[in-house]
Amino acid sequence: MYTIKLLRTTLSRPSLGATILRQPKLPLHPRFTSSFSTSNYRAMLTTELSEADVSALRVNQERLAKDLHHSCQWGSGIRWGDDPTDTGMQRLALSEEDKSVRDWFIQTMKDLKCEITVDEMGNIFAVRPGRRKDVPATFIGSHLDTQPTGGRYDGILGVLSGVEALKRLDELGLETEGESEYEEGARFPVSMIASGVWAECIPLSKAHNLKEVPTVASLPTAASAPETMKSALEKINYLGDVPCSYKTTPMAAHFELHIEQGPHLISAGQRVGVVTAVQAYRWFRLKIIGRDTHTGTTAFEHRADALYAFAQMMVRAREVAAAKGCLASVGIIEVAPGSVNTVPGQVSFSLDIRGPETALVAEVEKELRGDFDKIAAAEGAGIGKPCRVEWTLDFDSPAVKFHEDCIECVQQSAHAVVADAPVADTTTLVRPIMSGAGHDSVFTSKRVPTSMIFVPCKDGLSHHPEEFCSADDCATGASVILQAVVRYDRKRFA
Amino acid sequence: MYTIKLLRTTLSRPSLGATILRQPKLPLHPRFTSSFSTSNYRAMLTTELSEADVSALRVNQERLAKDLHHSCQWGSGIRWGDDPTDTGMQRLALSEEDKSVRDWFIQTMKDLKCEITVDEMGNIFAVRPGRRKDVPATFIGSHLDTQPTGGRYDGILGVLSGVEALKRLDELGLETEGESEYEEGARFPVSMIASGVWAECIPLSKAHNLKEVPTVASLPTAASAPETMKSALEKINYLGDVPCSYKTTPMAAHFELHIEQGPHLISAGQRVGVVTAVQAYRWFRLKIIGRDTHTGTTAFEHRADALYAFAQMMVRAREVAAAKGCLASVGIIEVAPGSVNTVPGQVSFSLDIRGPETALVAEVEKELRGDFDKIAAAEGAGIGKPCRVEWTLDFDSPAVKFHEDCIECVQQSAHAVVADAPVADTTTLVRPIMSGAGHDSVFTSKRVPTSMIFVPCKDGLSHHPEEFCSADDCATGASVILQAVVRYDRKRFA
Repeated sequence: MYTIKLLRTTLSRPSLGATILRQPKLPLHPRFTSSFSTSNYRAMLTTELSEADVSALRVNQERLAKDLHHSCQWGSGIRWGDDPTDTGMQRLALSEEDKSVRDWFIQTMKDLKCEITVDEMGNIFAVRPGRRKDVPATFIGSHLDTQPTGGRYDGILGVLSGVEALKRLDELGLETEGESEYEEGARFPVSMIASGVWAECIPLSKAHNLKEVPTVASLPTAASAPETMKSALEKINYLGDVPCSYKTTPMAAHFELHIEQGPHLISAGQRVGVVTAVQAYRWFRLKIIGRDTHTGTTAFEHRADALYAFAQMMVRAREVAAAKGCLASVGIIEVAPGSVNTVPGQVSFSLDIRGPETALVAEVEKELRGDFDKIAAAEGAGIGKPCRVEWTLDFDSPAVKFHEDCIECVQQSAHAVVADAPVADTTTLVRPIMSGAGHDSVFTSKRVPTSMIFVPCKDGLSHHPEEFCSADDCATGASVILQAVVRYDRKRFA
Repeated sequence: MYTIKLLRTTLSRPSLGATILRQPKLPLHPRFTSSFSTSNYRAMLTTELSEADVSALRVNQERLAKDLHHSCQWGSGIRWGDDPTDTGMQRLALSEEDKSVRDWFIQTMKDLKCEITVDEMGNIFAVRPGRRKDVPATFIGSHLDTQPTGGRYDGILGVLSGVEALKRLDELGLETEGESEYEEGARFPVSMIASGVWAECIPLSKAHNLKEVPTVASLPTAASAPETMKSALEKINYLGDVPCSYKTTPMAAHFELHIEQGPHLISAGQRVGVVTAVQAYRWFRLKIIGRDTHTGTTAFEHRADALYAFAQMMVRAREVAAAKGCLASVGIIEVAPGSVNTVPGQVSFSLDIRGPETALVAEVEKELRGDFDKIAAAEGAGIGKPCRVEWTLDFDSPAVKFHEDCIECVQQSAHAVVADAPVADTTTLVRPIMSGAGHDSVFTSKRVPTSMIFVPCKDGLSHHPEEFCSADDCATGASVILQAVVRYDRKRFA
């Protein structure tokens, strides 16, 4: 999170670029699929490549895997297997571990001759100087922070694929300028906050004042008072002075590689998902107010048991969501006063409603508001002191359709990368897919052409220590994003 | 909690006592209903009183109320009204506030010429020296600690009624030797632990090693690592060296005054409950193990959502318990990993099952074990990784029948105290009642004759800041316990 790696292919305007391209000072290297030094060749431009050259572009699978696991030394989590890399991750946003991996990222980018800027949300932009500064860059971005009990691929693969793509372009002699990444909401109760501020969808002050979720036992700072995002940024020295805005740091386009976090690719034996859209979702905080009473002396009909009301609500939420092809989930719950022999008078919980269309999510919300009121009214009715329920909307992310140009680049690249797979019809290995999860790309898509690439993960599992994506699948995804960025550049300046 | 006030009427053996009684050195005071100095009268023995004298015994209502609210300055909780005493209490076992009220209690008892001992569970015994040391004392006991969001009467009234009874006996010239109190399980996951150790129903080592419940946000030490009872006792300097056992500190009988904590007395307009029995209960800790997954990308049929399983279990628990005339309650719940967009893979919760008969509680448990297994097995079946549920029994308290002799003393005293009420038939103001809550008397009843007295509380509410018992009702209860102790003494030595 918050780090931004910026990948800028360096063609200037088409007319100018075309002129330069036809006067090479050094011979072009004949192939792009092996590693070599660029010192004897001039830098090459994407429009000089043939379609076959582009389709032959691949990342270095071994180096990608090595870098990825190297970066996971900061915040290694629960062990689940014997291999040194068989652990989960616990690298919460703005933690000490997060600082360490940010420091590593910046050093790595500096070694690749990138210029680093950090904005006031802690986004890191690593820009490799190119021939021209007057066109916006193409970005590859994701996040380096993880869930409290997360894995090694969610977000991390997206950033490391950018690092690897940049390394590969570098050794191939294609000029680049950087890459990017943001964060997601594991520690703070709004997801993708830094990209939201960049898109000017979330005010900076709101983001800075956001307090970390205080109830999660596994949070490193759960023991102390909840910290604001601004103070957490200051503490790890990542409160930059560059304004966080798409106006200050414009992008030409944004690409993001991510594990699917669902079972579709893995169960169909497919290799690449071309992400065309992201489902809508809303995050709520709900509070049920009942009455504390003694568990041993209070008959059921005399109770206003906030936890019993919650239990009924959660059961109902699944029924309603399922009937509309949506999802409804509770991830956090807090109960007061929290004593074995006291009926809880107060319950707070998170509610995450998702669906393929914004309107469907709104329908589920509406129906649940009515149903929850009824459930609350019934619990405690016998004593004339019914429970009541209060809703607070924390986050609203309407459904997103990604940009056709970006989708097309990803689709062509995906088919090119899987073309050498040993199956009769490799086109079956690629499918269009809708993202169930929110990603930083949701926010970038509001300002610039955006799309995403999914690769399979074991059992469709994520937000779990055993989250796993094979080195082969990681490299496939990284090769697709490498090609997609090149293709997008060719499309812009052809 | 843990303080023990020991009320010992000082008649020696009947034969001896009879001799002494007939040779008064000072004239007996003619009446026992007004306050006066004892200095001009000899100490009087209970067997010298007439039935009418005993029935005329009353505590000082104003002094009782004053002392009670004075003692509530340590750990005052949530304010709910305008009167200075309109607050709840938050005085958790072995907290700093608990230490303060213990110190006050000891000083108060010393001023009444009591000898103080503290046992290795922190029980305080305040014994007022009497003529003879060779007979066990009659006890009045309860607890001074409260729930995290408790009130001013649960336990506290029981102790303060003992203080007041002792003051009243003192000024009436009836020799006494002490009084008693224990604790209940607000901070530690076993209730009435100190009386349990005294009764040798709970091993001392188990009690000492018991860890405080770590999940309750309102606990003063929730931020730090859970503390053991022994270290908490040491910290407040109440780890005594007297063995905690009914053998070391024997009792002749045990009486306890308590608010009803239920709606029966208050809704029937009755004044005193003669407690004949305590319902059975069992406390469990349950753990549901599912699988952490992403809320946005995991279809319901692919989830092993431990919290959804919990919600179904809680709904089912009420159905099963209600069908058997029992209660089932959840007071504590903890969810991991605790992130808005992660389906919880693990849930821990407390389950408190109660019923009028031990066998009924066992039946509810058995049925729930089966049902919970089925619920767990269904959640996650779609991915071949069903949830599973584990039970741990924390506390088992079979149903208790109190002692006939004690019940009789309480019943006679109750009728005597309400006799001057302005109603046609005062016998309707007293009723036999079963206690829904556990009390220290459950443990004392295993070793010595025991019974309890209930007085009404507003709305039947307890374990809540607004828990309330009028000064009049408090005094009625205290007068009943005063008479009951005197009557029990007369019964022993008549």
